[in-house]
Amino acid sequence: RKLWLSYDAGQAWIVISLIGVCIGLNASFLNIVTEWLSDIKLGHCSTAFYLNENFCCWGAEDGCPEWKTWSTVWPVNYLLYILFSILFAYTSAILVKSFAPYAAGSGISEIKCILAGFVMKGFLSGWTLLIKSIGLPLAIASGLSVGKEGPSVHYAVCTGNVISRFFEKYRKNAAKTREILSACAAAGVAVAFGSPIGGVLFSLEEMSSNFPLKTMWRSYFCALVATAVLAAMNPFRTGQLVMFQVTYDRDWHFFEVVFFIIIGIFGGLYGEFVIKWNLRAQSFRKKYLKQWAIAEATFLAGITAVICYSNMFLRIDMTESMEILFHECEGGHDYNGLCESSRRWHMVTSLTFATVVRVFLVIISYGCKVPAGIFVPSMAIGASFGRTVGILVQALHEAVPNSRFFASCEPDMPCITPGTYAFLGAAAALSGIMHITVSVVVIMFELTGALTYILPTMIVVGVTKAVSDRFGKAGIADRMIWFNGFPFLDNKEDHSFGVPVSHVMNQELTVLPSTGMAIREVETILESTEFQGFPIVQDRNSKLLIGYINRTELKYGIDRAKRERTIPPTSRCYFLAPDQTQTPASTVGMTIASSRPFSSGSSSLSLDFARYIDPTPLTVHPRLPLETVMEIFKKVGPRVMLVEHRGKLSGVVTRKDVLKFQFKVENRENPRDDSAEVG
Amino acid sequence: RKLWLSYDAGQAWIVISLIGVCIGLNASFLNIVTEWLSDIKLGHCSTAFYLNENFCCWGAEDGCPEWKTWSTVWPVNYLLYILFSILFAYTSAILVKSFAPYAAGSGISEIKCILAGFVMKGFLSGWTLLIKSIGLPLAIASGLSVGKEGPSVHYAVCTGNVISRFFEKYRKNAAKTREILSACAAAGVAVAFGSPIGGVLFSLEEMSSNFPLKTMWRSYFCALVATAVLAAMNPFRTGQLVMFQVTYDRDWHFFEVVFFIIIGIFGGLYGEFVIKWNLRAQSFRKKYLKQWAIAEATFLAGITAVICYSNMFLRIDMTESMEILFHECEGGHDYNGLCESSRRWHMVTSLTFATVVRVFLVIISYGCKVPAGIFVPSMAIGASFGRTVGILVQALHEAVPNSRFFASCEPDMPCITPGTYAFLGAAAALSGIMHITVSVVVIMFELTGALTYILPTMIVVGVTKAVSDRFGKAGIADRMIWFNGFPFLDNKEDHSFGVPVSHVMNQELTVLPSTGMAIREVETILESTEFQGFPIVQDRNSKLLIGYINRTELKYGIDRAKRERTIPPTSRCYFLAPDQTQTPASTVGMTIASSRPFSSGSSSLSLDFARYIDPTPLTVHPRLPLETVMEIFKKVGPRVMLVEHRGKLSGVVTRKDVLKFQFKVENRENPRDDSAEVG
Repeated sequence: RKLWLSYDAGQAWIVISLIGVCIGLNASFLNIVTEWLSDIKLGHCSTAFYLNENFCCWGAEDGCPEWKTWSTVWPVNYLLYILFSILFAYTSAILVKSFAPYAAGSGISEIKCILAGFVMKGFLSGWTLLIKSIGLPLAIASGLSVGKEGPSVHYAVCTGNVISRFFEKYRKNAAKTREILSACAAAGVAVAFGSPIGGVLFSLEEMSSNFPLKTMWRSYFCALVATAVLAAMNPFRTGQLVMFQVTYDRDWHFFEVVFFIIIGIFGGLYGEFVIKWNLRAQSFRKKYLKQWAIAEATFLAGITAVICYSNMFLRIDMTESMEILFHECEGGHDYNGLCESSRRWHMVTSLTFATVVRVFLVIISYGCKVPAGIFVPSMAIGASFGRTVGILVQALHEAVPNSRFFASCEPDMPCITPGTYAFLGAAAALSGIMHITVSVVVIMFELTGALTYILPTMIVVGVTKAVSDRFGKAGIADRMIWFNGFPFLDNKEDHSFGVPVSHVMNQELTVLPSTGMAIREVETILESTEFQGFPIVQDRNSKLLIGYINRTELKYGIDRAKRERTIPPTSRCYFLAPDQTQTPASTVGMTIASSRPFSSGSSSLSLDFARYIDPTPLTVHPRLPLETVMEIFKKVGPRVMLVEHRGKLSGVVTRKDVLKFQFKVENRENPRDDSAEVG
Repeated sequence: RKLWLSYDAGQAWIVISLIGVCIGLNASFLNIVTEWLSDIKLGHCSTAFYLNENFCCWGAEDGCPEWKTWSTVWPVNYLLYILFSILFAYTSAILVKSFAPYAAGSGISEIKCILAGFVMKGFLSGWTLLIKSIGLPLAIASGLSVGKEGPSVHYAVCTGNVISRFFEKYRKNAAKTREILSACAAAGVAVAFGSPIGGVLFSLEEMSSNFPLKTMWRSYFCALVATAVLAAMNPFRTGQLVMFQVTYDRDWHFFEVVFFIIIGIFGGLYGEFVIKWNLRAQSFRKKYLKQWAIAEATFLAGITAVICYSNMFLRIDMTESMEILFHECEGGHDYNGLCESSRRWHMVTSLTFATVVRVFLVIISYGCKVPAGIFVPSMAIGASFGRTVGILVQALHEAVPNSRFFASCEPDMPCITPGTYAFLGAAAALSGIMHITVSVVVIMFELTGALTYILPTMIVVGVTKAVSDRFGKAGIADRMIWFNGFPFLDNKEDHSFGVPVSHVMNQELTVLPSTGMAIREVETILESTEFQGFPIVQDRNSKLLIGYINRTELKYGIDRAKRERTIPPTSRCYFLAPDQTQTPASTVGMTIASSRPFSSGSSSLSLDFARYIDPTPLTVHPRLPLETVMEIFKKVGPRVMLVEHRGKLSGVVTRKDVLKFQFKVENRENPRDDSAEVG
């Protein structure tokens, strides 16, 4: 038995490792393809067309003769750039539409619901995995303002789901599978950002409604394996996991906190603004563009390419532009004169334009029917805004260097590092859109290694969080959940309704009496209702509760009986609590079992479903406050609870009942325009 | 009402900020005092005796003439060193013994229990705070192998408790206070290490059994404020939060993973070994040294001073020695020839000696009656072991540089950085002793900024965790809890007992019938029993459950009635469920209320306790599996559950009942020598 137990415990680790390896491999494949597709828009490698610019010009800096742009005249290049963008977006959209509609969008909201126990068939299938893995590089390379982390989480979770299906333990046990999926979500973020600990924390803070320490340790392991595989594959050939390594020579000064707070406020406002308008765009999309998903994505890619080619920060890849914006000016990191004080006003204009246009593009692009995340675009927006602030502060300092405000600056030395403002801006925007805190701080470190800026980062993120809490109650993932009406109990809020559970329970019950029901009647009930299960009572008048039977179990029981022998439709069904002879000392609850009138299975005319019955469903008192009921739903996680008083069943309450009531109350208190518009 | 609500919500932030500021101030005070005390053992500042060496020689490197050692002959210095150590330890121990016995030790185990709902009077009092804050610098300066993080957590939580007492909201609500205390625990670790995010994660991973996101956000804020105050006070005048900033020039190589695994295994074995022997030392201490606490601490300090003066790594402060061990050899970081290849074998011997002696000292010192943590000593041990491994690997590489094993090293260049091994060793030992993973990784980053080493750190910590899971089930804090027999439901394990709740419930019930009991009888029951509360039944024969009344509420009710008028001892007490007229549509459960035979308070001879009754205590079915009951205890957190079937009360089950049963089962399965030895 010990051996079996240790195999059983070990199995989880085998599964996790396997999943981690696959996620890591997939991530490196995606990275390579994305790079190549992005570069092919601008030119091609004359030695081997399958090489991207970096590999083509291996070792050389700033291009090489082997890498050729498509033409020497810029209008042709411009046109080709637009054409490639459109082509990529079109391919991606058509793949998604034809093979796996679930592969569209980010997937984070849906996975949140799945991890909370909601079932969505096909959302984590192998097809979705395949199409998401092919469509994602195309969507990113098309230049749309979309990122790869949401989809990364999605394909990671798909991988986990597909692989764990091969193991019986997980095929049978949904709860155990969910543990694995939580770990996969962590690995997804980990490989998207090269940030293993950030991934674990993201899974903890944003994805999971229930995160015991065991899951944390699994997530840690899965993220570690995936990241290690990614590092070993080394797709960028830089040997670095850290995406944008920066070193800031100067420490920060206390007076800068003022500007950090401004950046933090921007983050909160940005998040709120984008969420609000993006939801409007979504509801417009739902109403009018349902048929035109492919055309829409293609059109968006075209528009994006046309607009963005003109601006130096919009034209290049978002990751690349962030890297440029994060760097300090010292040490030869200059890009098109970003650091020259003579071009300062030009840069401010250019960055502001980039910020505004990108915000607009994100609002209309996020949610279109290609794989699309919102992390990187948000960070890019934050970075360009932050850099603008940084440049302005620098200008201010140079204008009045002797002001008392700047007293702590060393004289005649550069004092402000605009790059750090870009860094903080990215953190603020990310926190603003997702409403997460700790994970943002950790992700930003792991992305850059800017450890001396830990306090500023925490301040900025703290301000953003405070500002966003003023406005809205949740990040974009939760808002999407509400928008789509998924049944998800929000774990973040305390509710105080002041009503007992009897107020929301379902009183029109479909119950099964324990004896005397014909199989025909049972089957009619199964067909005519959609309940997930049925309470069993002694008889319909007394309503004395005996147990609960799941729809699937009941169906399985009937099917099995039918397979064994022919069942006349008038056969009687018996639903009596199973005889628990091992029940100790206590004699309570044994009365029913001992009064059982027949030996199971002896008569072909009476069917015994005892073994399928749960004799001890969770029951609550009708006057129990609704808050306590919600707490039990959230923390202990049953699907349904029976409301019973003194043995008598008075109602049934499900997650959905509670949710519906919560929605009603919340809408009465402060109507949300996003949900109002759809419903 | 909205104004009040926002004040109410704001109040929490005011309290948290206040607490954060106090913790930050206290931490800087402690740092300054500790530094001074440590230096005074070696010499004094001739310009002003209250300055420590760093401030005395401000700006100068490697000492200055103003800083004088006590004497020019080393035996005198040695003697004074020993005398000062003994004096400090004696003072610390006597303070603890005379004023606040709870200030001894680390406090983490106890705080864990308090956060889980256990009440320990005086453990978080102002006196404990004061004595811990004075005793801690003395204990550290005495040179004992003790650290400051456990005590930091303790004084932070004390601060939180003392301050929140001033606010009525928290004085009244233990659950809300516990939220604040969780945040304080985070701030405690944050200021001890200058690691705000690490603190939050530590609080999450180790301290709290229940950690909703709201608490996470509070912890974040509290840790931020405390760390910012500490940074603003800038006690070391370095402007750095990062304790041991290191930069490693070289990246790691994949072949090094072999050695990382060795270090990880060491961490696991170290943790297990120290926990086991330390618990034996503790039980020895409990049996024989109870009367000699002061003498013991003094003696330990003396022994430590005598032994450690001879070894260059043991003589200096543990933090300092870690800093030395972490550095790479390039860039002028040499200490007594640590980097010279000619002295390599001397160093290996010296480091091994330091490792072994320190392990021994930690085993006998942790738990003695002065404020004492175990993080830093463990890390120091790990660092000296790691550095040993690093030096050996370096020697190996230099001996066979062309071996295929070292193929990925660049030729004729240093390839191995022993400092990184020390860093990883520290992480391994910390993880081994506490059984935490994610927080260790984050703390190690925030301590050093060695971001490129994130994967190695994760691998090492992962191996350590796997090894420690093989041996023991929990870290030292949990083992101490078991050792001391605190009632703490372990959140980390799944239990599978296979028995229903009726097996462990208490069947000999002290119930109160709802009508007809004389006040005299009620008072007798209150005096003769120690139950926290009493179930109320319709009458003793039917045992139909009506509700539950807390002991404190009942007492309060009686006292209040007595204050209002004289109560003859034969007055009848009525315990009827309060009349919930707002109960909606459902008519269930109203029968009792409507049959109420009197208007409340009208007769002086009948006392109505309706308002003190909880009419809907959590009830469970007698055959509900014990696992589910445990889950409800852990996650929903009631103190007691009533076991009821069809309205009839059949038993009461408390956390303690469940725990007792769990202990019994666990001891039968695998007897633990630590708990076997005490009871």
